[in-house]
Amino acid sequence: MKRFGASVRCQREKVGLSQEKLAELANVHRTYISGMERGLQNISLLTMIKLAKALSVELDKLLSDI
Amino acid sequence: MKRFGASVRCQREKVGLSQEKLAELANVHRTYISGMERGLQNISLLTMIKLAKALSVELDKLLSDI
Repeated sequence: MKRFGASVRCQREKVGLSQEKLAELANVHRTYISGMERGLQNISLLTMIKLAKALSVELDKLLSDI
Repeated sequence: MKRFGASVRCQREKVGLSQEKLAELANVHRTYISGMERGLQNISLLTMIKLAKALSVELDKLLSDI
């Protein structure tokens, strides 16, 4: 889960989004993003799909080294 | 979720595992595999990782067209 969180953070920073903005775009709470980036969330498929869309990236790219 | 389920079924059949055997290897209930392959389960990251290991495939391969 840590590696997925790091992957999301890396992509988020690459596209210049704050945690707040990503949370808004993905329709999740800001604290969820913070916890997930620290590997504390066992994220579900549907939430992953929303995050990938918000980050303008293919879902498999976020999971490429998991 | 349907496409992920179809992707798991395709890989499971490719490696010649029954739903029962995959469930045993991934340490989930057999009915979970059946529901997930029909797109009825909002699967979590940790369970996805267990499934990918049981199917001897990289996780991103199971998500390549999601």
